[in-house]
Amino acid sequence: MTTNTTFKLTELNEQSVQYIAVGAAVLGTGGGGDPHIGKLMAIEAIRKHGPVRLMSPDELKDDDLVVPLSMIGAPTVMNEKIPSIAQMTKPLDLIEKELGRKVTAIMPIEVGGGNSLVPVIAAAERGIPMLDADAMGRAFPESQMVTFYLDGLDCSPITMADERGNGVLLHAIDGVWEERLARAITIQMGGSASICDYPVTGAQVKQSAIAHTLTLAYEIGKTLYESKELKQNPIEALLKQLDGYALFHGKAVDIRRRTEGGFTRGEAVFEGTGEQKGRTMKLFFQNEFLLATEDGEVLAVTPDLISLLDQDTGMPITTENLKYGARVTAVGFPCDPKWRTAKGVEVAGPQYFGYDTPYIPIEQLAAKKGGDL
Amino acid sequence: MTTNTTFKLTELNEQSVQYIAVGAAVLGTGGGGDPHIGKLMAIEAIRKHGPVRLMSPDELKDDDLVVPLSMIGAPTVMNEKIPSIAQMTKPLDLIEKELGRKVTAIMPIEVGGGNSLVPVIAAAERGIPMLDADAMGRAFPESQMVTFYLDGLDCSPITMADERGNGVLLHAIDGVWEERLARAITIQMGGSASICDYPVTGAQVKQSAIAHTLTLAYEIGKTLYESKELKQNPIEALLKQLDGYALFHGKAVDIRRRTEGGFTRGEAVFEGTGEQKGRTMKLFFQNEFLLATEDGEVLAVTPDLISLLDQDTGMPITTENLKYGARVTAVGFPCDPKWRTAKGVEVAGPQYFGYDTPYIPIEQLAAKKGGDL
Repeated sequence: MTTNTTFKLTELNEQSVQYIAVGAAVLGTGGGGDPHIGKLMAIEAIRKHGPVRLMSPDELKDDDLVVPLSMIGAPTVMNEKIPSIAQMTKPLDLIEKELGRKVTAIMPIEVGGGNSLVPVIAAAERGIPMLDADAMGRAFPESQMVTFYLDGLDCSPITMADERGNGVLLHAIDGVWEERLARAITIQMGGSASICDYPVTGAQVKQSAIAHTLTLAYEIGKTLYESKELKQNPIEALLKQLDGYALFHGKAVDIRRRTEGGFTRGEAVFEGTGEQKGRTMKLFFQNEFLLATEDGEVLAVTPDLISLLDQDTGMPITTENLKYGARVTAVGFPCDPKWRTAKGVEVAGPQYFGYDTPYIPIEQLAAKKGGDL
Repeated sequence: MTTNTTFKLTELNEQSVQYIAVGAAVLGTGGGGDPHIGKLMAIEAIRKHGPVRLMSPDELKDDDLVVPLSMIGAPTVMNEKIPSIAQMTKPLDLIEKELGRKVTAIMPIEVGGGNSLVPVIAAAERGIPMLDADAMGRAFPESQMVTFYLDGLDCSPITMADERGNGVLLHAIDGVWEERLARAITIQMGGSASICDYPVTGAQVKQSAIAHTLTLAYEIGKTLYESKELKQNPIEALLKQLDGYALFHGKAVDIRRRTEGGFTRGEAVFEGTGEQKGRTMKLFFQNEFLLATEDGEVLAVTPDLISLLDQDTGMPITTENLKYGARVTAVGFPCDPKWRTAKGVEVAGPQYFGYDTPYIPIEQLAAKKGGDL
């Protein structure tokens, strides 16, 4: 999924952060941490230190050091246990100490949800740029689900911190071991923690990251905010902008959500509204929405993106904020081509999550059903 | 518990390791890892590199760096997943790198079980001395149960490794957080891991460690080995040597042992033999034997030491090697005075482990019962 314009955002200020928070919640497919909390923390940091420069990947020198910074854990926990500023800068301090050099830019590991914005806190505090790129082009629940892992880059050293002052440095042999160790630590740290992983060079960013995804999130947010003034349907505008598909219009009638294994897991059931009355959609999630079905038939499935939008405002709804009775439109978007490779589908496809379906690209599923709703 | 002689062991060779393995299994109160595996690995290392010098704490300069090295996890797992040499030296490498200086001596964190000997592997490999001291004077299941914690010393930095090549560095805010984080990591690492914690100075060792406990283990082993030649009863000789008490003579008739939460937990029931026919003893353990009762009455309780000895040979039996039908004598010894302070009892007394009894020193319990069996 790419933006259709050549515009590149160059600064993160209060307004761009507002837009990105909304766009990142769409790209976050329900997860990636609460965008509202990430936004408030980022705005607070910008008010204190001024706007943060947003650096384009092509500005990087090949041997520059770029470090992704994010929160790991269950979004349900992060809603209640807000990270501290010290907790956001500590993994950065630890990784700089371990690598013996300074970071050129901080990047979000995922453009989804709050994780698109929490790095801004550390960037503002330290006066270093944010990179306009991420390693998912969306949000995913597990830490090996990054393009850096698909491309065989080293995830270590990995650094973590909690809000109490505990710090961790991991040398994991691969991204799957990182996930096992970091997840277990996160659970002990109370269900959420800050983390730096996959420190990369400028050359590696150019080869492996997904570029300009913060600009993309900004543009999505701008579309949703401006559609009201322009008196256009926000969801239609968004689908047009992103080559997306409306999957279902419905009302949440059953939500089962549990915090387990360091994740927010569950499923939600929607009864059709309007022309779709009498139909039922099920949505399965592990932090992120991963599978949408109707009568056992797949509407969209990971690694393609599934998001829930408020039927009236088009504003995205996260897994942990979805409420009984919410009237929503489920939408789907094609994922970045890196996720459609054999390795991409193995790492983040439906079978990894235990869903008994092969990966079928959303365009094919939509064509089979006779196109969009 | 102190040795009654002024002899100090100065070298770890094949024979002293044989003796220490047996003595440490007595002091290990059933836990501390399998002494047989620790012994075999230590002997292998000594054959390859020659004897290891055993350093007395009073030889240390105040600013020397001493690092405890041990295995953490469930003894049942360590029986099957033998640590590698690289795994034993890696936490040492990581902690030297973090502290930016070389280690003067390695010490066992506990004199109990295999953990009294696994540091010999790294000491032999690196050509550095072992310290004749530990931080428990016995074995305990949790990592904050050390005299260093009682004395408020910093447990961090902590370093860990598994046999696959994963390495971890923790900055835990205190020993209880170390235990939470390190235990969770150990479980992910397959149930056992190597660890360095509480790096201490020579001055801190002199203030806080329990001195000459490897010499003590050596002397216990020597007593048990030599009693056969001397045609004396090994258990009687041992009790005399250590001011200990025989608690019960019996046969194991029920053993419930489960690996949970990174520990070997359970209880064993013994039916009396000989003069104690018709009586029943229960022994409760979490890696170590922690509580012995008869008809609900306490015979001995943590932090005092409870060990199981083979009735014929006097050889110690660990929790994970106790078998149905084993004929044993349960013995008890007074713990080091540091464990009898209010803080010591709070950290490693019966109520911490959830047993509904206050701590009563074994001398008082024995006096109440009219002395030894």
